[in-house]
Amino acid sequence: MVERLSAEARKAALWELAGWSETSGREAIAKTFVFKDFNEAFGFMARAALVAEKSDHHPEWKNVYKTVEVVLSTHDVGGVTKRDIDLAKAMNAIARQLGVS
Amino acid sequence: MVERLSAEARKAALWELAGWSETSGREAIAKTFVFKDFNEAFGFMARAALVAEKSDHHPEWKNVYKTVEVVLSTHDVGGVTKRDIDLAKAMNAIARQLGVS
Repeated sequence: MVERLSAEARKAALWELAGWSETSGREAIAKTFVFKDFNEAFGFMARAALVAEKSDHHPEWKNVYKTVEVVLSTHDVGGVTKRDIDLAKAMNAIARQLGVS
Repeated sequence: MVERLSAEARKAALWELAGWSETSGREAIAKTFVFKDFNEAFGFMARAALVAEKSDHHPEWKNVYKTVEVVLSTHDVGGVTKRDIDLAKAMNAIARQLGVS
Protein backbone atom coordinates (compact mmCIF):
# COMPACT_ATOMS: atom_id res chain seq x y z
CA MET A 1 0.00 0.00 0.00
CA VAL A 2 1.24 3.49 -0.81
CA GLU A 3 2.00 5.81 2.04
CA ARG A 4 -0.21 8.73 3.02
CA LEU A 5 1.72 11.97 2.65
CA SER A 6 2.21 14.14 5.72
CA ALA A 7 0.96 17.72 5.64
CA GLU A 8 4.53 18.86 4.96
CA ALA A 9 5.09 16.37 2.16
CA ARG A 10 1.74 17.36 0.64
CA LYS A 11 2.67 21.03 0.67
CA ALA A 12 6.08 20.29 -0.84
CA ALA A 13 4.48 18.25 -3.63
CA LEU A 14 1.86 20.92 -4.34
CA TRP A 15 4.60 23.50 -4.61
CA GLU A 16 5.62 21.85 -7.88
CA LEU A 17 2.08 21.21 -9.15
CA ALA A 18 0.78 24.29 -10.96
CA GLY A 19 -2.84 25.06 -10.16
CA TRP A 20 -3.43 22.32 -7.58
CA SER A 21 -4.35 23.09 -4.00
CA GLU A 22 -5.55 21.31 -0.88
CA THR A 23 -9.29 20.95 -0.43
CA SER A 24 -10.99 22.10 2.72
CA GLY A 25 -12.76 19.53 4.85
CA ARG A 26 -10.92 16.47 3.61
CA GLU A 27 -7.42 15.33 2.74
CA ALA A 28 -7.39 15.69 -1.01
CA ILE A 29 -6.00 17.90 -3.74
CA ALA A 30 -8.06 19.71 -6.35
CA LYS A 31 -7.77 21.71 -9.53
CA THR A 32 -10.25 23.25 -11.93
CA PHE A 33 -9.19 23.07 -15.57
CA VAL A 34 -10.83 25.44 -18.05
CA PHE A 35 -10.53 24.57 -21.71
CA LYS A 36 -11.65 26.24 -24.93
CA ASP A 37 -14.82 24.20 -25.36
CA PHE A 38 -16.42 20.82 -24.64
CA ASN A 39 -14.39 19.12 -27.34
CA GLU A 40 -11.14 20.02 -25.58
CA ALA A 41 -12.49 19.40 -22.08
CA PHE A 42 -13.67 15.92 -22.96
CA GLY A 43 -10.52 15.26 -24.97
CA PHE A 44 -8.59 16.00 -21.79
CA MET A 45 -10.85 13.67 -19.82
CA ALA A 46 -10.47 10.86 -22.34
CA ARG A 47 -6.67 11.03 -22.18
CA ALA A 48 -6.67 11.34 -18.40
CA ALA A 49 -9.10 8.40 -18.13
CA LEU A 50 -6.64 6.16 -19.98
CA VAL A 51 -3.84 7.19 -17.62
CA ALA A 52 -6.10 6.62 -14.61
CA GLU A 53 -7.25 3.21 -15.78
CA LYS A 54 -3.74 2.07 -16.63
CA SER A 55 -2.47 2.97 -13.17
CA ASP A 56 -5.72 1.78 -11.53
CA HIS A 57 -6.07 5.10 -9.73
CA HIS A 58 -9.11 7.15 -10.61
CA PRO A 59 -10.14 10.78 -10.18
CA GLU A 60 -13.34 12.29 -8.87
CA TRP A 61 -14.25 14.80 -11.50
CA LYS A 62 -17.08 17.00 -12.64
CA ASN A 63 -17.47 18.37 -16.15
CA VAL A 64 -19.66 21.29 -17.15
CA TYR A 65 -19.11 22.23 -20.79
CA LYS A 66 -15.51 23.50 -20.98
CA THR A 67 -14.69 23.13 -17.28
CA VAL A 68 -13.35 20.05 -15.49
CA GLU A 69 -13.11 20.10 -11.68
CA VAL A 70 -10.84 17.34 -10.41
CA VAL A 71 -10.39 16.04 -6.86
CA LEU A 72 -7.73 13.45 -6.10
CA SER A 73 -7.24 11.37 -2.99
CA THR A 74 -6.38 7.78 -2.18
CA HIS A 75 -9.42 6.22 -0.52
CA ASP A 76 -7.53 3.21 0.89
CA VAL A 77 -5.43 5.44 3.12
CA GLY A 78 -7.85 8.36 3.55
CA GLY A 79 -5.45 10.93 2.25
CA VAL A 80 -3.08 12.05 -0.49
CA THR A 81 -0.36 9.71 -1.74
CA LYS A 82 2.27 9.64 -4.46
CA ARG A 83 -0.38 8.09 -6.73
CA ASP A 84 -2.42 11.30 -6.53
CA ILE A 85 0.63 13.43 -7.17
CA ASP A 86 1.55 11.30 -10.19
CA LEU A 87 -1.97 11.54 -11.64
CA ALA A 88 -2.04 15.30 -11.02
CA LYS A 89 1.27 15.66 -12.87
CA ALA A 90 -0.04 13.58 -15.76
CA MET A 91 -3.20 15.71 -15.96
CA ASN A 92 -1.15 18.91 -16.00
CA ALA A 93 0.97 17.50 -18.82
CA ILE A 94 -2.11 16.59 -20.88
CA ALA A 95 -3.69 20.00 -20.27
CA ARG A 96 -0.45 21.72 -21.22
CA GLN A 97 -0.51 19.94 -24.57
CA LEU A 98 -3.97 21.41 -25.08
CA GLY A 99 -2.59 24.85 -24.34
CA VAL A 100 -4.04 25.06 -20.83
CA SER A 101 -1.91 25.44 -17.69
CA MET B 1 -34.90 28.62 -29.29
CA VAL B 2 -36.46 25.51 -27.76
CA GLU B 3 -39.37 25.94 -25.41
CA ARG B 4 -39.07 25.51 -21.66
CA LEU B 5 -41.32 22.67 -20.52
CA SER B 6 -44.07 23.42 -18.04
CA ALA B 7 -44.13 21.53 -14.75
CA GLU B 8 -46.84 19.27 -16.18
CA ALA B 9 -44.95 18.59 -19.40
CA ARG B 10 -41.81 17.86 -17.38
CA LYS B 11 -43.63 15.36 -15.22
CA ALA B 12 -45.17 13.68 -18.27
CA ALA B 13 -41.77 13.38 -19.93
CA LEU B 14 -40.15 12.00 -16.76
CA TRP B 15 -42.87 9.39 -16.54
CA GLU B 16 -41.30 7.73 -19.57
CA LEU B 17 -37.70 8.27 -18.53
CA ALA B 18 -36.56 5.44 -16.26
CA GLY B 19 -34.46 6.61 -13.35
CA TRP B 20 -34.65 10.35 -14.02
CA SER B 21 -36.18 12.77 -11.54
CA GLU B 22 -36.51 16.48 -10.96
CA THR B 23 -33.78 18.15 -8.95
CA SER B 24 -34.61 20.23 -5.92
CA GLY B 25 -33.67 23.88 -5.98
CA ARG B 26 -33.48 24.32 -9.74
CA GLU B 27 -35.35 23.38 -12.89
CA ALA B 28 -33.36 20.41 -14.07
CA ILE B 29 -33.53 16.64 -14.31
CA ALA B 30 -31.02 14.24 -12.82
CA LYS B 31 -30.03 10.60 -12.75
CA THR B 32 -27.22 8.63 -11.16
CA PHE B 33 -25.93 5.78 -13.28
CA VAL B 34 -23.98 2.99 -11.58
CA PHE B 35 -21.87 0.78 -13.80
CA LYS B 36 -19.69 -2.29 -13.19
CA ASP B 37 -16.41 -0.40 -13.06
CA PHE B 38 -14.59 2.67 -14.35
CA ASN B 39 -14.12 1.16 -17.77
CA GLU B 40 -17.88 0.92 -18.27
CA ALA B 41 -18.61 4.25 -16.62
CA PHE B 42 -16.18 6.11 -18.83
CA GLY B 43 -17.27 4.13 -21.87
CA PHE B 44 -20.78 5.41 -21.20
CA MET B 45 -19.46 8.95 -20.85
CA ALA B 46 -17.49 8.73 -24.09
CA ARG B 47 -20.55 7.61 -26.04
CA ALA B 48 -22.78 10.18 -24.37
CA ALA B 49 -20.19 12.91 -25.03
CA LEU B 50 -20.37 12.21 -28.76
CA VAL B 51 -24.16 12.47 -28.69
CA ALA B 52 -23.95 15.68 -26.66
CA GLU B 53 -21.39 17.28 -28.96
CA LYS B 54 -23.29 16.30 -32.10
CA SER B 55 -26.47 17.91 -30.81
CA ASP B 56 -24.55 20.81 -29.22
CA HIS B 57 -26.29 20.19 -25.90
CA HIS B 58 -24.05 19.17 -23.03
CA PRO B 59 -24.59 17.55 -19.64
CA GLU B 60 -23.32 18.54 -16.24
CA TRP B 61 -21.86 15.34 -14.88
CA LYS B 62 -19.69 13.99 -12.13
CA ASN B 63 -17.83 10.71 -12.26
CA VAL B 64 -16.44 8.83 -9.27
CA TYR B 65 -15.09 5.43 -10.30
CA LYS B 66 -18.13 3.44 -11.49
CA THR B 67 -20.74 6.13 -10.79
CA VAL B 68 -21.87 8.93 -13.11
CA GLU B 69 -24.22 11.60 -11.74
CA VAL B 70 -25.87 13.56 -14.53
CA VAL B 71 -27.83 16.82 -14.38
CA LEU B 72 -29.53 18.17 -17.49
CA SER B 73 -31.05 21.58 -18.08
CA THR B 74 -31.10 24.12 -20.86
CA HIS B 75 -29.24 27.19 -19.65
CA ASP B 76 -30.59 29.50 -22.36
CA VAL B 77 -34.13 29.14 -21.06
CA GLY B 78 -33.39 28.38 -17.40
CA GLY B 79 -35.29 25.13 -17.39
CA VAL B 80 -35.88 21.75 -18.96
CA THR B 81 -36.57 21.47 -22.69
CA LYS B 82 -37.02 18.75 -25.28
CA ARG B 83 -33.25 18.84 -25.77
CA ASP B 84 -32.75 17.60 -22.20
CA ILE B 85 -35.38 14.91 -22.63
CA ASP B 86 -33.73 13.75 -25.86
CA LEU B 87 -30.28 13.60 -24.25
CA ALA B 88 -31.69 11.75 -21.23
CA LYS B 89 -33.30 9.19 -23.56
CA ALA B 90 -30.05 8.75 -25.46
CA MET B 91 -28.14 8.24 -22.18
CA ASN B 92 -30.64 5.63 -21.03
CA ALA B 93 -30.26 3.81 -24.35
CA ILE B 94 -26.45 3.80 -24.06
CA ALA B 95 -26.60 2.60 -20.45
CA ARG B 96 -29.07 -0.12 -21.40
CA GLN B 97 -26.60 -1.45 -23.95
CA LEU B 98 -24.09 -1.69 -21.12
CA GLY B 99 -26.60 -3.68 -19.09
CA VAL B 100 -27.52 -0.80 -16.77
CA SER B 101 -31.04 0.60 -16.50
